[in-house]
Amino acid sequence: MINSVAIQGIKGSFHHIVAQAFFQENVEIKEYLSFDAAVQSLLNGQTDTVIMALENSIAGSIIPNYALIDVNKLHIVGEHYLDIQHHLMALPGQRIYDIKEVHSHPMALLQCKAFFEDYPHIKLIEANDTADVAKQIQDKQLNGVSAIASDLAANIFGLDILAKSIQTISHNETRFVVVKRHNSEITKNEINKVSLKFELEHKRGSLAAVLNMMSDCKLNLTKIQSLPKIETPWKYAFFVDVTFDDYNDYNKAKAILKLMAQDFKILGEYKNAKQ
Amino acid sequence: MINSVAIQGIKGSFHHIVAQAFFQENVEIKEYLSFDAAVQSLLNGQTDTVIMALENSIAGSIIPNYALIDVNKLHIVGEHYLDIQHHLMALPGQRIYDIKEVHSHPMALLQCKAFFEDYPHIKLIEANDTADVAKQIQDKQLNGVSAIASDLAANIFGLDILAKSIQTISHNETRFVVVKRHNSEITKNEINKVSLKFELEHKRGSLAAVLNMMSDCKLNLTKIQSLPKIETPWKYAFFVDVTFDDYNDYNKAKAILKLMAQDFKILGEYKNAKQ
Repeated sequence: MINSVAIQGIKGSFHHIVAQAFFQENVEIKEYLSFDAAVQSLLNGQTDTVIMALENSIAGSIIPNYALIDVNKLHIVGEHYLDIQHHLMALPGQRIYDIKEVHSHPMALLQCKAFFEDYPHIKLIEANDTADVAKQIQDKQLNGVSAIASDLAANIFGLDILAKSIQTISHNETRFVVVKRHNSEITKNEINKVSLKFELEHKRGSLAAVLNMMSDCKLNLTKIQSLPKIETPWKYAFFVDVTFDDYNDYNKAKAILKLMAQDFKILGEYKNAKQ
Repeated sequence: MINSVAIQGIKGSFHHIVAQAFFQENVEIKEYLSFDAAVQSLLNGQTDTVIMALENSIAGSIIPNYALIDVNKLHIVGEHYLDIQHHLMALPGQRIYDIKEVHSHPMALLQCKAFFEDYPHIKLIEANDTADVAKQIQDKQLNGVSAIASDLAANIFGLDILAKSIQTISHNETRFVVVKRHNSEITKNEINKVSLKFELEHKRGSLAAVLNMMSDCKLNLTKIQSLPKIETPWKYAFFVDVTFDDYNDYNKAKAILKLMAQDFKILGEYKNAKQ
């Protein structure tokens, strides 16, 4: 069965790269303008999978995407890490001194700001999607305009890379998750990472008690975040990722957590992509 | 001494409201286009205080502002909670059916999107600052254009409120911090909340051990967040807020934490605004 995969952005975007890397097979890519629209396509059955950036090593968690998974009762069935490299690209034959404007997503412009200090003649202009700028440059044969995007985008839209990896912080690892309406189809033996959400009474030591129990059950914490609950300000939920060697250990912790915590929820059971 | 306070945005913005509420006295407000620029003004001595939104009950933490405090070795000397209410406003005499466009900050537009579903004739347009749109409407006497902003902005720029509290989620409490170059001047008796940052070895149970110790020392956790370390992807730092009744309890925990954790840092010692 060919997976029909919703991505935010257009082909050539980092989400497209992740879809290719994760499925390593023919997938049908469907392009959406927002994460909201991508999730909507999953809910109404137009697609069967959504690829979603969830956190990166510069900005931290992308909280609204956690909310999309949580509120719509979706399941994380896999994860993929991508080291995001931003390249400067333009029509073939253009040199960097021909470039008058660079258009890109505000986040990409921010991450590459320092590079452009050496090129004060280049104006930085915000755009909606990194890959879409590359597409426009090719479609409209825009001279003097450059994009900041992936090498896949340069490839697809036939642009030349003028400068490679122009972002200030050389490593910008981003964690993407693969999301479906239904649970993962992998076996319990293959599952070694889970994403959990739970609430605790605001009582001294309540979180420490839960983390102790998890540690006793041989779970490794890879992420923790307290998050305000929408509609009840300052009541906190916890989002926690853990890894483990033995599914039985996790199973035991899960049974205890159901008793210890309120509103316990499994956001996903999947294979750890970092091993 | 009059405080010279840097705010992100212009007078009438939510940061301005917080500056007034926190200092309850004459402060000289200086307007900056970004949090970066506001912090720069503090570092070069043009201002002596910065007001900064740090987290809200919808989107979670504003991570780049944590980084600004951390990297520039600034100190949180106080906090203030504001329930953000968005109002629709226009020139006096305008009715909602006269309005063709609403301009506001993307975050404000997002939070009020549902309201405009009943008014499909109104076009939503992104702007840099909520209050600045109100100012432009008055300065340029723009008919048919409305702003989404605070009642202070309506007041300052002489606009009429067409609809009150149009945001979808009625409570949107935002936590602002008051930041200076030097430590708080309040006495140890007055301090009952601190913001801490530390790193831990990625070892099972290491965070549980720290939280146990804190609980033993009678500290109450009000926030926890693991954050990727910039330049060393997936090595995590922890940002933690705790409250306490007795400064001596905190002092003891602090001494132990210096031994247990790496790179322990106090981001601020101040008075809990929620009691």
